[in-house]
Amino acid sequence: MTRDIPEISLQRLPVYLNYLRSLSGEENKFISSGAIAQALGMGEVLVRKDLAYTSSAGRPKVGYVRTELIAALEDYLGCNEKKNAVLVGVGGLGRALLSYGGFVNYGIDIVEAYDSDPLKAGTEIAGKKVCSAEEFERGMAQYSPRLAIIAVPARAAQGVCDMLVKAGIKGILNFAPVQLKAPQNVTVRNIDVAANLAVIGSMI
Amino acid sequence: MTRDIPEISLQRLPVYLNYLRSLSGEENKFISSGAIAQALGMGEVLVRKDLAYTSSAGRPKVGYVRTELIAALEDYLGCNEKKNAVLVGVGGLGRALLSYGGFVNYGIDIVEAYDSDPLKAGTEIAGKKVCSAEEFERGMAQYSPRLAIIAVPARAAQGVCDMLVKAGIKGILNFAPVQLKAPQNVTVRNIDVAANLAVIGSMI
Repeated sequence: MTRDIPEISLQRLPVYLNYLRSLSGEENKFISSGAIAQALGMGEVLVRKDLAYTSSAGRPKVGYVRTELIAALEDYLGCNEKKNAVLVGVGGLGRALLSYGGFVNYGIDIVEAYDSDPLKAGTEIAGKKVCSAEEFERGMAQYSPRLAIIAVPARAAQGVCDMLVKAGIKGILNFAPVQLKAPQNVTVRNIDVAANLAVIGSMI
Repeated sequence: MTRDIPEISLQRLPVYLNYLRSLSGEENKFISSGAIAQALGMGEVLVRKDLAYTSSAGRPKVGYVRTELIAALEDYLGCNEKKNAVLVGVGGLGRALLSYGGFVNYGIDIVEAYDSDPLKAGTEIAGKKVCSAEEFERGMAQYSPRLAIIAVPARAAQGVCDMLVKAGIKGILNFAPVQLKAPQNVTVRNIDVAANLAVIGSMI
């Protein structure tokens, strides 16, 4: 999918979606961009601009119909198209991610996990199979995932990334604290938890 | 610490630090901003500008002395000042974070964790004590942490945030998929893992 939305706006769409999903009741049938902006501590112009990408139209005076805006955001973020993903590296973080229920809110199904430790192969975590590295090709053929999560130690991450790219993965969320090299047509984003906390620590 | 660095540059400093730490040997004694930029797939001007905030000076022709640049980045990110942090919510993610060794690279020590489940209180994970909610005040007095991690479900996150702010926490890394309200003098940053993967999914 190639669209004109800047990535920074795209990253904010789940924030709006989470907020709108958290509301309920007749009094929240309509919501204005101003109310959303205030609740999230953001500027109203920014909110209106971001939401305009989803092609949901706010109505003068009353604002957005909340359920319509949720549907537009879900549609834009692809929550209604089921997307298979795989996870590589079943250490503590990998286990936590396999158990995490939040992916389903975005239509993402982590179908299988892989780990090089033969003792882990054949186990299940939260109903997800943990497979040996040898089963990787079979899994890719079976599920045709385009998304993957890397949760291996830093030293192993580039090798795993190369394997994923070779197998046709187009989007990678990498938790290893290392910058991965991947072809231009593969989107890689990093979450370095310790670095995030360090940055906060140096801001306070 | 208030400094003039834009947050976006600050967030990139750990990326440089990770890369520089991954190198070794006599052939990497010096490194140029161009070489760093190429290795990380970034623009050279950006790299040079970011690194200038750390007051480490590159030398014409040879570039930076790698160990000096590492030291400057570590100093700027406060890696050498020990910082206590607490974690609230010892579910799968909380357990994984307690076991994660990466915080020590930034001088961060997760001293204790808290969970409302009385069955978890008194246990240890990776040598860290899991305490009941009742022990929170004692822990805050004992360790004077300024940093905290929230790893509780979304519905509990705002209550936990309020408790942390009241206890004097100044920086929060929040994993619950909800926008938290906190006073202006408290820095809150969010990591929504599922949203991150969804954003990647809608870019590919």
